Amino acid sequence: MIREGKVFLELDLPKVISADMGVFYNPHMRENRDISLLMLLVGVPEGAVVCDPMGASGVRALRFLLETQKVGKVIYNDINPKAVDFFIKLLEKHSVDKQRVEVYNEDAVLLLRRLKNCHYVDLDPFGSPIPFLESFLFPVARHGILAVSATDTAVLSGTYPQTCQRRYHAKPLLECEFYHEVGIRILIKKVVEEGAKHDYAFEPIFSYSYRHYLRVFFRKDIGPRRADRLMESIGYLLYCDGCLFRKGVRLEDIQRTCPYCSNRLLVAGPLWLGSLWNKELVERLWEVRGSVEISEETNKLLKRIKGEAHIKSVGFYTLSSIAKAFRLSQPPPMKRFLEVFEGKRTHFDPEGFRTELDHEEFLRRVKEL
Amino acid sequence: MIREGKVFLELDLPKVISADMGVFYNPHMRENRDISLLMLLVGVPEGAVVCDPMGASGVRALRFLLETQKVGKVIYNDINPKAVDFFIKLLEKHSVDKQRVEVYNEDAVLLLRRLKNCHYVDLDPFGSPIPFLESFLFPVARHGILAVSATDTAVLSGTYPQTCQRRYHAKPLLECEFYHEVGIRILIKKVVEEGAKHDYAFEPIFSYSYRHYLRVFFRKDIGPRRADRLMESIGYLLYCDGCLFRKGVRLEDIQRTCPYCSNRLLVAGPLWLGSLWNKELVERLWEVRGSVEISEETNKLLKRIKGEAHIKSVGFYTLSSIAKAFRLSQPPPMKRFLEVFEGKRTHFDPEGFRTELDHEEFLRRVKEL
Repeated sequence: MIREGKVFLELDLPKVISADMGVFYNPHMRENRDISLLMLLVGVPEGAVVCDPMGASGVRALRFLLETQKVGKVIYNDINPKAVDFFIKLLEKHSVDKQRVEVYNEDAVLLLRRLKNCHYVDLDPFGSPIPFLESFLFPVARHGILAVSATDTAVLSGTYPQTCQRRYHAKPLLECEFYHEVGIRILIKKVVEEGAKHDYAFEPIFSYSYRHYLRVFFRKDIGPRRADRLMESIGYLLYCDGCLFRKGVRLEDIQRTCPYCSNRLLVAGPLWLGSLWNKELVERLWEVRGSVEISEETNKLLKRIKGEAHIKSVGFYTLSSIAKAFRLSQPPPMKRFLEVFEGKRTHFDPEGFRTELDHEEFLRRVKEL
Repeated sequence: MIREGKVFLELDLPKVISADMGVFYNPHMRENRDISLLMLLVGVPEGAVVCDPMGASGVRALRFLLETQKVGKVIYNDINPKAVDFFIKLLEKHSVDKQRVEVYNEDAVLLLRRLKNCHYVDLDPFGSPIPFLESFLFPVARHGILAVSATDTAVLSGTYPQTCQRRYHAKPLLECEFYHEVGIRILIKKVVEEGAKHDYAFEPIFSYSYRHYLRVFFRKDIGPRRADRLMESIGYLLYCDGCLFRKGVRLEDIQRTCPYCSNRLLVAGPLWLGSLWNKELVERLWEVRGSVEISEETNKLLKRIKGEAHIKSVGFYTLSSIAKAFRLSQPPPMKRFLEVFEGKRTHFDPEGFRTELDHEEFLRRVKEL
């Protein structure tokens, strides 16, 4: 017997979690569901219609029903009839009012082409969201939320650059210390672009990297001018692996040589250069976290993001990247780095921190270490 | 009464052609239909299944049925019931065997999600193909043909660069003499990318610009490695409006300064840097042109493309661009340009020509003019 939040599951977990399980429940996605719940608490109107088109075991859908009063109706779908049966039994065991649930058993893409005006839609596939992405854009209501998970983190972060080009049409950057952040910025770029094609503006409001996956929540708005405004935050990243210079630029401002150390610059992108978080939303998530049972890990993650969300920066530094670039044989502890660089730790990396210092100032402070 | 090929139409044409016409027949698209017909003659197997999901008046579908023996079945669709009625009457008047036609009256996107293994699918919307594009990728059979028209030529060619970014995610280049070619290369990039997302390789085999529209035929293949190979031909265009230097480069090779005249370079893209035509296919189109009744204009267009398809070049020159850049007060006639630069005229521009000379040699020959 497994418990997660208010949900009880009669499932034996296999040793290896995989899509081959008869009905898919992934205990490592607990934090994913915790954060989705908090997002509903602060992000959707009372009586919201919430759609989970790849519902699997239905634990997320059920937690939405049991743990928030805000959800008026859950639309659950899974293409696997076993999953649907499992979910229906789960609903009965937890005595859920059937008026609050619509259950479908079909191809998510076809279902989504019919649905409209959902306040929250969750794209949480096993693997890359790309083959499904376009269909998920339409059913989201204006000002509604689209959640997108990607488990092809290695692709987005640069281990398989060709696959990244093929799926996301962008060049990743494994050579930098914030390659996961580059990955999430490529994922955001793709969602913003796919939305813009249809005159939608999907603005990222909360992004994070956790275990093996990346996840971003977007707020939808409608209209070509709004889409244009988002597109303006898409550009390229210049990076120097000599002196750690990094800068987001537009296509016409790409240059080949580092202005600080004359190294050949590396280029990544196109990618999202705007903010990864809506600061006010992060504060509200933090405030309501007590009203739902979340894991210790979820709490830690939120706390760190609350700290870094205030820092405007594309990329971060790590102790090792600085030590290596500037040949510090005995780097001081994290505390010292945070002081010297006026830094905030990032959830992306246990030894990473963000700063708003410009590169000239950064280089000056390195000498103070 | 209008006649086009073997089709007779009882329609009065309004003075202004627009999508508001009850049933849409555009006489200016005759060349479009001529070339589609020739493409079927050389590009699909006997008994081919051919799909026209935005069939409108049905003239194209009917010409496919009446003027080629190769077509086994036509799948016609239009969302407008008036168009469907018109087409059904047209079929009767022309005594078409009903076994050879399937008629639908629904949203093209939903229909296409159900269809499979079509040897030819035509995406020919009023405006941009982008909102429909993804759905058109699936029903095309392996080695089948996808035809894509775009009438948002001004967007692709640089008059509305923001809209181009929003729809096609690329920067156009109105400042160069071959801005229409840049537009078609951006269109191709988008189709290649959309295909690659789904591990399809849509390779352009025949491209042209005519009147107000751009049109490209793609051959579909399947598999991530094949998609990767196509993606390798996507890059950026550097252009110097001082000395007319132009070069296709990869992201990491973008530079800011013209290596010949030190001007600030302009950059466009990402866009397709590969070939716009399959040379052998162009030859075969030329050979079979007599077996269908095509217009004088179609013949001229094919002839010019037959000439330029052998030249490997990204972009072309025009008499005016050379005269302006090199301050020729009395430019010689086209014939002289073609001799000096070993050029071939391009269908894109009546005063344009292609050459394979590299830029150094080009500059040397300019002095010979």
